[in-house]
Amino acid sequence: MRFSNMFIPTLRDVPADAESVSHILMLRAGYVRQLASGLYIYLPLGWRVMNRINKIIREEMDAIGAQEVSMPVLHPAEIWQQTGRWDAIGDEMFRLKDRGGRDMCLGMTHEEIMTWLASKEIRSYRDLPQIWYQIQTKLRDEARPKSGILRTREFIMKDSYSFDVSEEALETNYQLHADAYHRIYERCGLRFFMVESDPGMMGGAVSHEFMAPSPAGEDEVAICKGCGYSANVELALSAPSKNNPVDWQTEEVHTPEKRTVQEVSNFLKLPPSYFLKSILLITDSGPVLALVRGDQELHEKKLARVIGSHRPAQKVEVKGILGVEAGFIGPMGQKIRTIADESLRDGVYVSGANKPHYHMKGIRAGRDFQAEWHDIHVAKEGDFCVKCGQSLHVERVIEIGNIFKLGTKYSMPLKAVFLDESGQERPIVMGSYGIGPARIAAAAIEQNNDKDGMIWPDSISPFDVEILPLNIKDPKTMQAADTIYKDLTDKGFEVLMDDRDERAGVKFKDADLLGIPIQIIIGEKNLKEGLIEIKKRRTKEAVRVKVEEAVETYIAGRNK
Amino acid sequence: MRFSNMFIPTLRDVPADAESVSHILMLRAGYVRQLASGLYIYLPLGWRVMNRINKIIREEMDAIGAQEVSMPVLHPAEIWQQTGRWDAIGDEMFRLKDRGGRDMCLGMTHEEIMTWLASKEIRSYRDLPQIWYQIQTKLRDEARPKSGILRTREFIMKDSYSFDVSEEALETNYQLHADAYHRIYERCGLRFFMVESDPGMMGGAVSHEFMAPSPAGEDEVAICKGCGYSANVELALSAPSKNNPVDWQTEEVHTPEKRTVQEVSNFLKLPPSYFLKSILLITDSGPVLALVRGDQELHEKKLARVIGSHRPAQKVEVKGILGVEAGFIGPMGQKIRTIADESLRDGVYVSGANKPHYHMKGIRAGRDFQAEWHDIHVAKEGDFCVKCGQSLHVERVIEIGNIFKLGTKYSMPLKAVFLDESGQERPIVMGSYGIGPARIAAAAIEQNNDKDGMIWPDSISPFDVEILPLNIKDPKTMQAADTIYKDLTDKGFEVLMDDRDERAGVKFKDADLLGIPIQIIIGEKNLKEGLIEIKKRRTKEAVRVKVEEAVETYIAGRNK
Repeated sequence: MRFSNMFIPTLRDVPADAESVSHILMLRAGYVRQLASGLYIYLPLGWRVMNRINKIIREEMDAIGAQEVSMPVLHPAEIWQQTGRWDAIGDEMFRLKDRGGRDMCLGMTHEEIMTWLASKEIRSYRDLPQIWYQIQTKLRDEARPKSGILRTREFIMKDSYSFDVSEEALETNYQLHADAYHRIYERCGLRFFMVESDPGMMGGAVSHEFMAPSPAGEDEVAICKGCGYSANVELALSAPSKNNPVDWQTEEVHTPEKRTVQEVSNFLKLPPSYFLKSILLITDSGPVLALVRGDQELHEKKLARVIGSHRPAQKVEVKGILGVEAGFIGPMGQKIRTIADESLRDGVYVSGANKPHYHMKGIRAGRDFQAEWHDIHVAKEGDFCVKCGQSLHVERVIEIGNIFKLGTKYSMPLKAVFLDESGQERPIVMGSYGIGPARIAAAAIEQNNDKDGMIWPDSISPFDVEILPLNIKDPKTMQAADTIYKDLTDKGFEVLMDDRDERAGVKFKDADLLGIPIQIIIGEKNLKEGLIEIKKRRTKEAVRVKVEEAVETYIAGRNK
Repeated sequence: MRFSNMFIPTLRDVPADAESVSHILMLRAGYVRQLASGLYIYLPLGWRVMNRINKIIREEMDAIGAQEVSMPVLHPAEIWQQTGRWDAIGDEMFRLKDRGGRDMCLGMTHEEIMTWLASKEIRSYRDLPQIWYQIQTKLRDEARPKSGILRTREFIMKDSYSFDVSEEALETNYQLHADAYHRIYERCGLRFFMVESDPGMMGGAVSHEFMAPSPAGEDEVAICKGCGYSANVELALSAPSKNNPVDWQTEEVHTPEKRTVQEVSNFLKLPPSYFLKSILLITDSGPVLALVRGDQELHEKKLARVIGSHRPAQKVEVKGILGVEAGFIGPMGQKIRTIADESLRDGVYVSGANKPHYHMKGIRAGRDFQAEWHDIHVAKEGDFCVKCGQSLHVERVIEIGNIFKLGTKYSMPLKAVFLDESGQERPIVMGSYGIGPARIAAAAIEQNNDKDGMIWPDSISPFDVEILPLNIKDPKTMQAADTIYKDLTDKGFEVLMDDRDERAGVKFKDADLLGIPIQIIIGEKNLKEGLIEIKKRRTKEAVRVKVEEAVETYIAGRNK
């Protein structure tokens, strides 16, 4: 492909509203444009990357026996009503009415429709297992679309669904997917790992996420280098650092106007880990008191798994329910439901004294308060692994895929059943599995860039190689360029040739910005010696080789 | 691919609600399933066909220098408001609000978004020409979805858009598309032709449709075998058969209770072509009288191009406006706007006499009534070509593509401009071009089927060849099947092998239903002589060849 025939609108300046590196570079290099909040147009270069990623995904899905289908974006409400998600999902779902006034929605995911299809077509255990997948458009009305193509309201997703006779059979398909996902990310050149995750709105018992480490990520994972334990911090278990070594008797301490852990910690000259933090929350079934250690953060999602949806109490509610103003509350003598973090089981603490401007030293679980015990704190760097006791490492990551064991959550309400070998009707056991190719592209850029632009992994670069004839008016330059272009193209490589009548500096700058991994530079000076230059985008190392050896040198370099 | 690993849910019975042959066969052969009215799921076989068609489309689009991009399904209303189509398009457009209450719509087509992109990115004549295309999902809330995948509410479309400096340059891109479309349909094995068409909601001055002859079509085209003139009957010009040869004096005739042309024609024993039919219509700017010859039908769309949108007058309106009851009206002495069909210019006619239960013989244009003259009749079989005078043939067709010269209809309101060589700002001149791959698939089936099932053209068949080992329990059969399968697959062919443990009859029936063009049949009896059978699906001709010659015989047959 010749640059002059291609629509590559590069930008000199950093776009004002772009946040992440991938967002900035995809705009600057002319890969994408934003149509509206969370809605992106893929320009020719961006779309080439997506197609290369999708090809890898297809190959790996086909290799595990998955079969590609294609389902509509537009869904009738009835099927979503049958599983309850029509009501359970809020503003994230785009809803509309058709001309007949019927409720419809835009597919956020396809568990409902896939299960509906299985309910119509699967009859017998002989029809199972099945894996059906599609690479198709999803729509989710994100509250805060951001970071370019990382979090959009419309996106392409490879979603697959497995249908099995039993949990054991599901385990096989689940593992096949986990392995296929590993191969996909490896082939796409990403650094990544698989972690335990929260099934969230998908439901089901077990799920894992695939995460690409990057500061641009919206998630955090906790990883134990000792035993390999890794999980999204949304559910990562951890043992905080050791408890304080003191053994105080209970004692009221005057702490005038000192309300927060930080204020009291400074005032009493004790580290935050010596404190017990009490937080009052309001649920549909009444108030709940949550207790965490002073150096820990309460994890809303972990707590939500215990008490359901909740909100923080307002000041006036704290006073009304606990009889003391916020800042001085403690669990002692409180009659409401109390959830305490595991880290508070042992040791003695300073807590609010349930008396204005006083705190109480020497508070001890079991003796001074009763509670239900759960891990409700946010796992953080330096916490200890609950499995092996070694230090946890917390890393920011981009979610690039997820896999769910759904069990019969969808097959039961949609009556997707089969007759087993004994002729008995049983619900199909399902899994669902998602990969976002746009996130793979963005993660690849986040993990591979420098001050000059992107650096694509070979496998998903929009082109394999870029040829830069520096002076297109020099016939010898163009003859060499055309020869190498033809030779590479004939060998099946995708080649971009910058045939624009531009200064060498502009071509170098754009080539680095575009990030094609190898540049073949054809300059008049080298050419006089019969040489061209082959340059690696990543290291900027260049070798000079004979014109007629350019292609074989390029190929030899690729295979390294 | 092995049949046993593939999801091909064939049906024995003809589905009750399927209308067209393609609809019935795609359901029966397990190619598609209907999710809801006008919403279809492509199963693995159907999706393979779509991918093969899309590959051909991509190759031909790339060959004319078109560049593939991808745009969202979801559009902000503002851009559609700027071109006026937000208001001009009715219930066909799916509309919704996002969580912020902003008006959005689902893309029926992408003129607005493509032009918006051009307005942001095109600066200079040096940036032109451009052709951008996508193969992407469109949504239209059809009033009456029907015929399976022929008229659906959600469908995939290849839509391309050309951007040029002038009408002359547009002509080049328009012709490039017309040629590419010819190649696409030829490669897909369709019988088709290109006809003049009505631009409809796209606007613009010139447009053509590509039509595949089929009784399942919803359109009709008029074709002149003399000069090659061809057009959608929506705008086809035609000269009806010769006028009546009589030359009556005006004379009132009593026609008691005879109102319709048919009734009066029977009563007076004169053919319908001797009559003048007057039809009263109501428009926003008042009543209009339309006149056509008694043997012709008024063409609503042709008339709409003259008088705009309109509706038939009710009986009470006819009486009120014309002073006489419906059935006896004539154009004589009427003071309202009158549009007459060209066929009435000459000759004398029988018309309503504007007097209850009377008609008037001897009515003549110019003398007895004045009118604006237009072609407002439906062209029909046996009419004469207005260009060369030969007979017109009218054929039912499936619309499989269309191309539009848009001019500056979209670039003006969206301010998509460029600076020309003299530095002057000018609007970009545009074209738009659509192909529906699903319609190609359906048309291919409509044109190629027999009582046993589909017969795919080689190029778009889900598989190139199907191998039928008749007894999978016979090791020699399976050995031959596996050898041929491997050999064909290694040579790059897509092969389906029916490895199911089914009776030969079931395999034959399903193979014919699925319509893969070549069947390689491996039976024990032939195998004893070292032979297999190669059978053409279309003709059912079979040849017996040696096992080791199967592949070369297949390849040789393909190239014929």
